[in-house]
Formats: sequence, structure tokens, C-alpha cells
Amino acid sequence: MSALKGATVPIYFGSFIVTSQVFHTTPLTFALVNLKPILPGHVLVSPRRVVPRVTDLTPAETSDLFLTVRRVGRMVERVYGATSLNIAIQDGAHAGQSVPHVHAHIIPRKAADLDHVGGTDAVYDLLDGDEGDLGKAFKNSVPTEEGDQSIEVGNGSAANSGRSRFPVVDNDARKPRDEEDMRAEAEMLAREMENEPLD
Amino acid sequence: MSALKGATVPIYFGSFIVTSQVFHTTPLTFALVNLKPILPGHVLVSPRRVVPRVTDLTPAETSDLFLTVRRVGRMVERVYGATSLNIAIQDGAHAGQSVPHVHAHIIPRKAADLDHVGGTDAVYDLLDGDEGDLGKAFKNSVPTEEGDQSIEVGNGSAANSGRSRFPVVDNDARKPRDEEDMRAEAEMLAREMENEPLD
Repeated sequence: MSALKGATVPIYFGSFIVTSQVFHTTPLTFALVNLKPILPGHVLVSPRRVVPRVTDLTPAETSDLFLTVRRVGRMVERVYGATSLNIAIQDGAHAGQSVPHVHAHIIPRKAADLDHVGGTDAVYDLLDGDEGDLGKAFKNSVPTEEGDQSIEVGNGSAANSGRSRFPVVDNDARKPRDEEDMRAEAEMLAREMENEPLD
Repeated sequence: MSALKGATVPIYFGSFIVTSQVFHTTPLTFALVNLKPILPGHVLVSPRRVVPRVTDLTPAETSDLFLTVRRVGRMVERVYGATSLNIAIQDGAHAGQSVPHVHAHIIPRKAADLDHVGGTDAVYDLLDGDEGDLGKAFKNSVPTEEGDQSIEVGNGSAANSGRSRFPVVDNDARKPRDEEDMRAEAEMLAREMENEPLD
């Protein structure tokens, strides 16, 4: 079941079916809530077509992806009371990509939001630590097209190099959320997107 | 003097004149070599119009910026023999932005390129440490529109929070390069852009 009215076809993030997490779609792009948000409102924006690299996108997909990043970013900044955004793409395994499907992280930021874990730039430690390992998190929690939650995807070896050196943050928000939590947030964000100007 | 044939008007990055560092322009976007590259081929892509936030861009500027990121990223990956790219935007002071002019970092990556400083994800430590503080680096080395190299720009307080906790990397590449070095790289990359397919 989808958080979006009228959505019928399953939406894939890599080999994972994420339909219930999706809160916005265009013909070429979708936006989904995150299984393990680093901060409230941390969402992902991906092309509908499952391709690993930015260079694999067509020009139309590239434009649409980033117009969607801009519009979704403005929405989550408003809804979560933030003042800035981190936007980051790990484009390829050697850049830390763990699910081989282009995705832009959008992370709403506000003053002193990460002071308890080291300051403004601790966001990258979290993004790149075990906490931010999408491949691992999805593998343990989200069905794949084969219906097998334990199937291996992504590029574990590159994605994992260096991850363990960051301190584990003891924070309930780090636990993967259940599907109902994610669906509720996706439904709320889908409604908020209706209030967001097109341009 | 510009690295680009025929360029006549100065190009601004925030309040800094960066014309000699620019290796590619479109009517709405430019790409420049970095004063203190974190890794070889670390470049920046910015809108011609000096605006601080992604949401300040028009849809046409947004599309053009990211089509340029895609094309420049493919070029530096090829020229520097890389296999992946980190693409990152600090969109606002509370996300670590130090020069209040939208800019996407493009950092070519390859296997084991940062193993000597901690692994794949050490790129973010470098990006956010003193080494990656564009505001500080430019302030010390690049003329401003007022012709005063010591003028204060950007948002030092937010940009600096948390920066000092990362280890300083003892590496000659961390030293700001001189203008001739940057111009030579910009001229080489300008030639390479001519070999890069438009789409």
C-alpha cells in the first residue's frame, strides 16, 4: 500500500520495494522517507529508473531529479523548522554508495542540532557511519523484489571501508523505524508537498 | 586574465574574483578549480548569479547547475583516473556553508585513495575540517571586489563550529596553491571539457 493516493505500481530503491515510504513522485523522480534518519526530516530523492551513477541519467532525468531536490528540500526545511540543508550524493561505490541506485540525501539542519555529537559537520560522520549505511538498513528491514529480506545488494566492501571508525551514537532515532511510522510520515509529507509552490 | 578563451567579464565566487580559476562556463553556471583541493580534481560548480541558497535559484538555474555538475563530474572522473564522485552542497550556514554562494563540491574518488587518512569516508572530515574551509582559504589568497584580501565574508561562526575536532592532515596538497598553478589546471580542464560529450 502506498502513502500516495492513486499509486499502483511498486516503486523500487535498488532492489528494495519502498512504495510505502514514498511521499512524492514525478514521472522521472521519487522522494522517500528514510529508514534511519540522521536528523528529523532526512529524506532521499532518486530517479524512477534504477541506475547507479549520475552520468547514467538522461539530461531530462538530471534536471527533474534536482528540481525535485530543490522543492523537497524547501518543504522539509519548512516542515521540520530547519534553516539549512545538507545535500549529498555518494556517486559510486568508491565514494561510499551502499545501494547502487542514484540517491540524493537531503538533511534539514538548524543551529546547534548536532552539538551533542560533535558540531555542525558531525552530519557526515553519521551519514557515513554504520548509522547511515542504507544498504545494511534496507537489507534488514525492507522486502526485495524476490521477497527475501536477507538478499545481498549493493557494494558492501567499498561502502564499509572506514565506517567503523566513527563513534556509535546512542540515540533511539538510530533504530530502524517500523513500516507504520514511515508510512505515517510519508502521508504527512505527501500532504505538505501539496502546499509547496511548484517553482 | 582568464583560463577561458574570450572571457572578458570577471567571475565572482561570493565576493571573490575567481576568473583565472574558472575552466567552464554556461550562460547560467561556471566551474572552477579549488584553492585547496581535498583530492586531485576536486572542483566546484556554482551559478553565475551570487545567491546563497539552492531555493534562491530559478528552475532554469537549477537544471543548468546540475547538468553542469553531471558533465564536469564525468570529465574530472576521466581526467583524474577516478571511479566514483562525492557530490556535496552545504546549503546554508547551519549546514557548514562558508562562502554564501551556492556551490557543489565534486570530488573524484578511487579505491583506497584515502586509506592513509582513515578510509573512504574521510573525505567528509577533510571537506569539513579547516582544510575544506573555502571562506578562510579564499580570504587569505583571492582578491575581492574591493581589492582587499583581508575582508571578512561568509558565516564564520557556523562554518567553524566543529571544524577543529578533525585531525589535521599533513600533506603538501593542503597548502593553498598559487594563482599560476590554478590557472594551468584550469587551462588543462578547459581543453578537456571540449572533449566531453554535451549530454
